[in-house]
Amino acid sequence: MSEIQVLLVAGTHGNEINPIWLFEQWEKSAVLINTYGIATHKVIGNPKAYKSAKRYIHSDLNRSFIKELFSKTNHSNFEIRRAADLFQIYGVSGEKPCHIALDFHTTTSSMGSCLVVYGRRASDLALASLVQSKLGLPIYLHESDHAQTGFLVEAWKCGLVIEIGPVGQGLFNSRIISQTKLVLESCLEQIKLVENNNVFFPDKLIVHRHIKSIDFPRDYKGFINGYVHPLRQSKDWHPLNINDELFLMPDGKTIKFEEKETFRPVFINEAAYMEKNIAMSLTKREVWEFKSEWKKALFDLVQK
Amino acid sequence: MSEIQVLLVAGTHGNEINPIWLFEQWEKSAVLINTYGIATHKVIGNPKAYKSAKRYIHSDLNRSFIKELFSKTNHSNFEIRRAADLFQIYGVSGEKPCHIALDFHTTTSSMGSCLVVYGRRASDLALASLVQSKLGLPIYLHESDHAQTGFLVEAWKCGLVIEIGPVGQGLFNSRIISQTKLVLESCLEQIKLVENNNVFFPDKLIVHRHIKSIDFPRDYKGFINGYVHPLRQSKDWHPLNINDELFLMPDGKTIKFEEKETFRPVFINEAAYMEKNIAMSLTKREVWEFKSEWKKALFDLVQK
Repeated sequence: MSEIQVLLVAGTHGNEINPIWLFEQWEKSAVLINTYGIATHKVIGNPKAYKSAKRYIHSDLNRSFIKELFSKTNHSNFEIRRAADLFQIYGVSGEKPCHIALDFHTTTSSMGSCLVVYGRRASDLALASLVQSKLGLPIYLHESDHAQTGFLVEAWKCGLVIEIGPVGQGLFNSRIISQTKLVLESCLEQIKLVENNNVFFPDKLIVHRHIKSIDFPRDYKGFINGYVHPLRQSKDWHPLNINDELFLMPDGKTIKFEEKETFRPVFINEAAYMEKNIAMSLTKREVWEFKSEWKKALFDLVQK
Repeated sequence: MSEIQVLLVAGTHGNEINPIWLFEQWEKSAVLINTYGIATHKVIGNPKAYKSAKRYIHSDLNRSFIKELFSKTNHSNFEIRRAADLFQIYGVSGEKPCHIALDFHTTTSSMGSCLVVYGRRASDLALASLVQSKLGLPIYLHESDHAQTGFLVEAWKCGLVIEIGPVGQGLFNSRIISQTKLVLESCLEQIKLVENNNVFFPDKLIVHRHIKSIDFPRDYKGFINGYVHPLRQSKDWHPLNINDELFLMPDGKTIKFEEKETFRPVFINEAAYMEKNIAMSLTKREVWEFKSEWKKALFDLVQK
């Protein structure tokens, strides 16, 4: 076994059950997943919410990794306590310290399989480059969104979120499960290749950089009174241009996109984001030159 | 306004939000729905579960219409109390007595739009015939299932469930909303035509008669250890024959269908039925001769 320790998380949201199910089957049959000899620690992020068939008990666990709150161990919020517990066990100074965290999610949006990176940490971008190069997955770069912080993977030195959709909450789907398995194995394979110094980084990285999120149309009381236009539904990653159909109102009126710039929407109609007032998030597709310091950061972490 | 009173229910399950949303918009704009002059009473079945973004609080409201329990008004189960309240207001001897109930649901299964009738009540079959003739919708005849009773529409003299899918729980979808509107208006149109004695019943009725439900594969502890086979997923209403792929196990093994008879599965992978141990329900497709007593029963009810 190598020395790098990888934390694998399923069920950070309790109603995203396909990765949880894969982990449970893996627990019963160790040969189910090819780990390429990498030491892994797998954990169900929010088992209490999973049992209750809910996303969370008190608040979103994937917004609860706020280290300043961890010292208060008897916090009344379940997810803050759970985040503190996970960090105490698997954090960098924990009982079973992990160096990389991979957090497996599903989405009701038609995003296929994709990677989410938070901010521009060099080791995240290096690992994401390798997985993108191997599987061709799009990368959603989430940054500069002050309304949303405290993501799980940010509490580790390196971490990626894997989002796979579309699948309803609380619903098994064979395609989602097999895609989760493929991305999980590919991540571990790439980490192993880094460890073996036998890896080829791509020249370019394609990112979809988060610009902003937009809300549903609302009436004067604040209730949603329009939904995603049928021509926009399931068009994640596709260009959104001025005058494109955006929302449809119950009276048949179409609300069009009014901005002149071209964006690429993601998380279109993600069920869990309604409460966050997000109908979709707008990104810019960018091609970045691969930077040698990304590679160095990942090598430093893995090869130590 | 005519004398026939029609009860329209959305959100009998609190996380089936598309019909609820349509009703809310209709509340704001009376012209949104063409009622063909039929007097309607619209109600959110389980508003408490809707607010909690759950299917139900204590138990399934659509299994709670058990009149024997209604006398105990302080029942500890919220849904039994709610069923009793609805029946007290809109039941045949209620404050606002309704003659027909239409109960709008969504499903995570790929069933398109369909009608569900419970048992073989003549007036239900007559109304379902008219709507099938108009829109071509399949009819799922739910009967002889002793594990499942207490359905809402059974507490009224005539009633249909409308199921529309696929859509995830808690997720808006423009197609589901517009299909709900279409079926709602078509039902009211047909009731109006009956009232006006201006209606043509079809010669035949095509029903998919419930035979039995089948569970997911389970391990020795009772946990689900296989999921719907990718070749079976979304194949609601399609024939299921011997040796057809049914479930897929995590190790890649396929479980095939072993019975010699041909069935037509419905509610394949309905998220809410996992807790009921139902992976899908098997039906027989049958073509029935239309019976004149069905017509008489509906006329007697509508024209009084």
